[in-house]
Amino acid sequence: MADHTVKSFTEELDALTQEVARMGGLAEMAVNESITSVVRRDTSLAQGVIERDARIDTAQHDVEKRAIKLFALRQPMASDLRVVLTGWRIAGELERVGDLAKNIAKRALILNQAEPIQLTRSVERMGKIAAQHLKQVLDAYANRDIDAAVGVWFHDEDIDAHYNSLFRELLTYMMEDPRTISSSAHLLFIAKNIERIGDHGTNIAEYIYFLVTGEQIATQRPRPPSSETTE
Amino acid sequence: MADHTVKSFTEELDALTQEVARMGGLAEMAVNESITSVVRRDTSLAQGVIERDARIDTAQHDVEKRAIKLFALRQPMASDLRVVLTGWRIAGELERVGDLAKNIAKRALILNQAEPIQLTRSVERMGKIAAQHLKQVLDAYANRDIDAAVGVWFHDEDIDAHYNSLFRELLTYMMEDPRTISSSAHLLFIAKNIERIGDHGTNIAEYIYFLVTGEQIATQRPRPPSSETTE
Repeated sequence: MADHTVKSFTEELDALTQEVARMGGLAEMAVNESITSVVRRDTSLAQGVIERDARIDTAQHDVEKRAIKLFALRQPMASDLRVVLTGWRIAGELERVGDLAKNIAKRALILNQAEPIQLTRSVERMGKIAAQHLKQVLDAYANRDIDAAVGVWFHDEDIDAHYNSLFRELLTYMMEDPRTISSSAHLLFIAKNIERIGDHGTNIAEYIYFLVTGEQIATQRPRPPSSETTE
Repeated sequence: MADHTVKSFTEELDALTQEVARMGGLAEMAVNESITSVVRRDTSLAQGVIERDARIDTAQHDVEKRAIKLFALRQPMASDLRVVLTGWRIAGELERVGDLAKNIAKRALILNQAEPIQLTRSVERMGKIAAQHLKQVLDAYANRDIDAAVGVWFHDEDIDAHYNSLFRELLTYMMEDPRTISSSAHLLFIAKNIERIGDHGTNIAEYIYFLVTGEQIATQRPRPPSSETTE
């Protein structure tokens, strides 16, 4: 009986973790498709991302319900508590990633009504890195792989650097051809959203570190001095 | 003894709510000061906002710890569960409000190194509305005042409308005087951050509605059709 209880407790923890992993898959797809909808000017793809965001929100609520049930009925301690807590927190980060992808898709709808402009390639490069980091960090979560998590954590600066150069590129582009200012402003926000997706990836990496070690990552991640980033 | 237990449970719930309220005060101050640091070009005020953001993060962790302890040791049900859950969620919203204020302050530091530009007044107006809404929603939380919460929820559209007109104003301004493009881009992000602060205010209003009624707000909040907003 005690054995049964322990077993079903483990099963509940696994179910929570799997739901978070499933949510990660949805968020990863949303990010990839939102970037593609900008690059290929694909309006129907963008609309799909916007419609499917509700699934990510529903998954978050499911994770939250499972976590509360586990807190209340199992009073998890030590590593079990960390499993529940990090699951809840990672679900929160993924929900925000989904919102950012949705926002990128909404801006794609606006951009597709205007003349095509350059620099979408730089956005594509930046978006691919962010999506790749998100995939790596979700794999690290599935495998409890600290080294992979810390690796992503340290390389978020790549995305920040891309963002900062793209920020300058876009401003120059606006100055050279004021007719592009409106579309460039939307690309500016898209780039910022991609950078924030990268930041959520590093937050997830920090949660994985805490999940496995029970400690916070000590060192400060280096950031470009003239960073446009934060929050 | 049972009475003592009940009493101390109530005390723990109150302590959680008070910590969230204290956090709300810090976030409200950060928003007001970050806007002022932009309008008055006050670099030391901006630096103060950036430094004090750590206090808001610490308060959130404290709320989280209290919530987990209550989930685990008290297994709160019904309205008690809502008190813990909404306290946790509102603390999460306030932490993001603090980050947005910090980001506004960081941009103030950049703007203060460039020539002053127009339109900071429009930003000030928009910032005052957002700060006012945040204050109202925090009062509504303290007083469990549904009508006040719903009032803020419905009036977030004011902030969205301000943001949309400011967005257009800034683009026009950039087109007319390309030398202002860099500073205008930072103002664009500051306006977006203020709008997001407004969105967090409406999220808090929704949580208060859930806290008091146990139900989600049913109706859809009207939004300007050409809204730049979302997430």
